[in-house]
Amino acid sequence: MNDQSASIADRVTASAQALRHGPNTERTVFFSDAVFAIAMTLLVLDLRVELPSNPSVEEINEAIVEQMPAFAGFLLSFILVGVNWINHHRRFSGIARYDGRLQQLNLLFLFFIAFMPVPTSLLFVNAGSPWPVALYAFVVAAISLSLNLLWWYARRAELMDEKVSEALYRYSLHATVPVWGVFLLSIPFAFISTDIALYSWLLIIPVSIIFNRVQWRRFVSRETARFAAEDAAAAQAAG
Amino acid sequence: MNDQSASIADRVTASAQALRHGPNTERTVFFSDAVFAIAMTLLVLDLRVELPSNPSVEEINEAIVEQMPAFAGFLLSFILVGVNWINHHRRFSGIARYDGRLQQLNLLFLFFIAFMPVPTSLLFVNAGSPWPVALYAFVVAAISLSLNLLWWYARRAELMDEKVSEALYRYSLHATVPVWGVFLLSIPFAFISTDIALYSWLLIIPVSIIFNRVQWRRFVSRETARFAAEDAAAAQAAG
Amino acid sequence: MNDQSASIADRVTASAQALRHGPNTERTVFFSDAVFAIAMTLLVLDLRVELPSNPSVEEINEAIVEQMPAFAGFLLSFILVGVNWINHHRRFSGIARYDGRLQQLNLLFLFFIAFMPVPTSLLFVNAGSPWPVALYAFVVAAISLSLNLLWWYARRAELMDEKVSEALYRYSLHATVPVWGVFLLSIPFAFISTDIALYSWLLIIPVSIIFNRVQWRRFVSRETARFAAEDAAAAQAAG
Amino acid sequence: MNDQSASIADRVTASAQALRHGPNTERTVFFSDAVFAIAMTLLVLDLRVELPSNPSVEEINEAIVEQMPAFAGFLLSFILVGVNWINHHRRFSGIARYDGRLQQLNLLFLFFIAFMPVPTSLLFVNAGSPWPVALYAFVVAAISLSLNLLWWYARRAELMDEKVSEALYRYSLHATVPVWGVFLLSIPFAFISTDIALYSWLLIIPVSIIFNRVQWRRFVSRETARFAAEDAAAAQAAG
Repeated sequence: MNDQSASIADRVTASAQALRHGPNTERTVFFSDAVFAIAMTLLVLDLRVELPSNPSVEEINEAIVEQMPAFAGFLLSFILVGVNWINHHRRFSGIARYDGRLQQLNLLFLFFIAFMPVPTSLLFVNAGSPWPVALYAFVVAAISLSLNLLWWYARRAELMDEKVSEALYRYSLHATVPVWGVFLLSIPFAFISTDIALYSWLLIIPVSIIFNRVQWRRFVSRETARFAAEDAAAAQAAG
Repeated sequence: MNDQSASIADRVTASAQALRHGPNTERTVFFSDAVFAIAMTLLVLDLRVELPSNPSVEEINEAIVEQMPAFAGFLLSFILVGVNWINHHRRFSGIARYDGRLQQLNLLFLFFIAFMPVPTSLLFVNAGSPWPVALYAFVVAAISLSLNLLWWYARRAELMDEKVSEALYRYSLHATVPVWGVFLLSIPFAFISTDIALYSWLLIIPVSIIFNRVQWRRFVSRETARFAAEDAAAAQAAG
Repeated sequence: MNDQSASIADRVTASAQALRHGPNTERTVFFSDAVFAIAMTLLVLDLRVELPSNPSVEEINEAIVEQMPAFAGFLLSFILVGVNWINHHRRFSGIARYDGRLQQLNLLFLFFIAFMPVPTSLLFVNAGSPWPVALYAFVVAAISLSLNLLWWYARRAELMDEKVSEALYRYSLHATVPVWGVFLLSIPFAFISTDIALYSWLLIIPVSIIFNRVQWRRFVSRETARFAAEDAAAAQAAG
Repeated sequence: MNDQSASIADRVTASAQALRHGPNTERTVFFSDAVFAIAMTLLVLDLRVELPSNPSVEEINEAIVEQMPAFAGFLLSFILVGVNWINHHRRFSGIARYDGRLQQLNLLFLFFIAFMPVPTSLLFVNAGSPWPVALYAFVVAAISLSLNLLWWYARRAELMDEKVSEALYRYSLHATVPVWGVFLLSIPFAFISTDIALYSWLLIIPVSIIFNRVQWRRFVSRETARFAAEDAAAAQAAG
C-alpha cells in the first residue's frame, strides 16, 4: 500500500466521521441544561397540595403540614441535582470536543437526572419500606458514577481541553467519592433500618471535608512537582 | 519564600481554579432561562379544568367559572415571574464572570422560582387560611432578596462588568425594595385578615412610583458628581 | 445649560440604560424558545389515556377511541403554536436590539402561548357550550395580535435590523390578518352554534390564499418603486 | 425585460426572503433540543407511583413492583428518543442554512418526538390489545422517516454544508432503515400476536449489524472512487 492510497483511506475515514464528532460541545451542553432544568422543576409537582372542592381552614392547614415530608424530599433532591449541574458545568468546561460515545455517556448521565423525580416522590412517604431509600441512594450514586465514567472517557479519547492537567483530572474525578461512596454504602443499611440509612447520608459532610483535604494536598504536591520540573527544564534550556 | 516558588504556588492555584470559574456566564444564563420557562409554563397546570366524562353545557360553564380564582393566581404569578426574568436578564447583563459561589446563589434564586407553582396553587383556593397567603408573600420576597444577594456577591467578588458603576449597582440593588418590602410586611397582616394582606399588595404600585423617583434622583446626583469629577480631572490633566 | 453639562446628562442617561437594553436578542429568543417547547409538549399531557388497573382489551380500545377529540385538539394546537414559532423566529431575525418594553411585549405574547394548553383541553370535550370555543378563538387571536404589537413597537422604537424595509415590515405585519381575523369573527358565531364557529376556522385557508396574493402584489410594487428610485438617484449622481 | 429591471426583481425577491431563511440553524437546533429534553423528562411522569394516604410497607413494595412494565416502557422510549437526539445532532451538524420548509419538516419531526409519551404510557399496560403496540411502532417509524424527509429536503434545497459528500448523505439517509423497517413490519404482526410484535423489535440489533456493514462498504467504495478521481485530476492538472 503506497502513500497515495493510504491518504485516500484517511480521507474516507475523515469523511465518514464528519458528522459524528466536532470541535465544540455547545449543543450537548445546552441540551443537558434543559434536562436539568426540567428535572429540577418537575420535582415540584409532587408538592401539589390536593384539596377537597370547598376546603375549610383546618383542611388547608392540615394539607400544608402533610406536605412537609414531600417538601424535605424536594429540597434534598433540588440540592443534589443542583450540585450535579455545577459539576456537569465544571467537567464540560474542561471538555473541548465531542464524539458519539461521549454523547451516549452524557445521555446515560441524563437518564439518572431525569429519573430523580421518581425516587424523590417515594422517599419520605413511609420510612418503613427499605426500597424507596435504597432506590434513591442508588440513583444518586449512579448520577455521580456516570459523570465520572464520562470524565474518564473524555480523557482516554483525548477530548479534553489542554488546560486540564493530569492532576486536575484526578482531583475532579475523586471529588465526588464521598457522595457516591456514602450513598452506595447506605443501601444495605436500608434493609436493616431506613432511619440508619437516611441519617447516614449526613456523613457526606464530614467525610467530604476530610477526604477533600487529603485530595487537595495530593493535587498541590503533584502540580508543584510538575511546575518545578517545567521551570528546571526551562532553566536548563536557557542556561 | 523566593519569587520562583511563589510563582509555582500561583500556577497551582490557577490550575485548581481552571474549571471553577470562567469569563462568560452564557451557560448559567441559559440554564436559568430554562428554569424560568418551565416554572412559568407549569403554572398553567393548575388551570386544567376537571370535567365529568360526559359533561353538560352547564357543568362546563360552571367549571370554567370555578377556575377564575385559579386564573387570577396564574396571572399574578406569571407577571411576578416575568418581571423577575427581566430583572435576572438585566443583572446578568452586568455580570461578566462567574465562580462557584455565584452559581450556588443563582441556584438558590432558581429554587424559589421553581417553587412558585406551589404557593400559586394554594393562593386563591380559600382566603380563610392565612398560611397560603403568608407562604406566597414569603416566596415572592425570597426571590427578590436572593437576586439581591447574588448581585451584592457579584460586586464583592469582582465579577461585574466595568460598565456597572457604583451608582448603577446601588440603583439596581434598591429597585426591588418596594416589592419585597410590601410582601414581607403583609405576612403578619395575613394572620389578622387575609383580605387585608391580599389588598395590601396593591401598595407596591404607589410605593414603587414614589420610591423609584427618590432612588432615581440619588442615582442622577451620584453619576453627575462622578462625571463632573472625571471632566475636572481631564481638564486639569490637559490644562 | 452649556455643552459640558448636557454631555454629563447624556452620560448619566447612558449609564442608567446600561442594563436595560442591548445589542442582541439572543437570550430573549432562547427563553421564548423554551416557553414554546414546553407549551407544545405540555399539550400532550391531555392525551394521557386513563385506564382502570387491569384493563381488558375492549377497555383499552375504547379508551383510545375516546381520545380522538383530544387528539384533534392536540394536533390543531401543535400546528398553531408551531406556525407561531416560525413567525416569532422570522420577526426576531429582523429585530436587532432589545429594550425593556420589547421584553414586556414578548412576555405578553408568551403568556398566551403558555396558556394554550387550557383552551385546548376544553375545545373538543363538548361542542355544546360556546365558552370553550370562544376562549380558544380569543387566545389564538391574542397570540397573533400581541406578536404584531411587538413588531409594531420594534419599528417605532428603532430596534429593527436595517434589512427590514418599510414594505417588508408591512408585509409581515399583515401576514397574520386572516388568522386572527377569522378567529375573532368566529367568537360571536360560537354563541349561535359551536359547529358553525368550528367549521368557520377552515375559512383561514382560502382567505389566506387570496389575502396574501393581494399583499404580495402590494409588497412587490412598493419594493419595485423603491429600488427604481434608488437606481434613478444613483444614475443621476453618476451622470 | 432589460438587465436593470431584472436586477430590481431580484432585489425584491431577496427583500421578501430576508426573514424567511438564514445562514445558521442555531435557533432551530436549540428549540429542538428543548422539545427533546421535555419529551424525555415527561416520560418519567408515567412512573409516578400512586399510593394510598397512609401506605403500609407491603403496599409500597407492591406499588413499586407494579411499576416495572411502566419502567420498561420508560427505558425503551428514553433510549429511542436519545438515539434520535444523536441522529438529529449529526444531521444538523451537516445542515448549514435553513428555510421555511426545513423548519416545517423539523416541526413535523418534533411532533412525533413530543407525542412519544402517549404510546409509551400505553405500551406495557396490557399486551392483549394490538393498538398500543401498533401505535408505538408507527410513531417510532414516523420519527425516523420524518428525519429522513428533512435530510432529503435539505440536500434538494441546497441547505447542506459542503463537507457532506453525496456518499455521506446516502450513508446517513440509510442508517435508520433497520429501525423504521422493523417497526413498520411489526405493525401487522401486532394484530396476530402482540408478543410476536414486541419480540420482533429485537431484530433491529442483528439487522442493523448486517445492514450497516453493507452500507459501510458501499460508502467506502464510493468515497475511494471519488478521492481517486480527484487525485487523478490533480495529477493531470499538475503534469
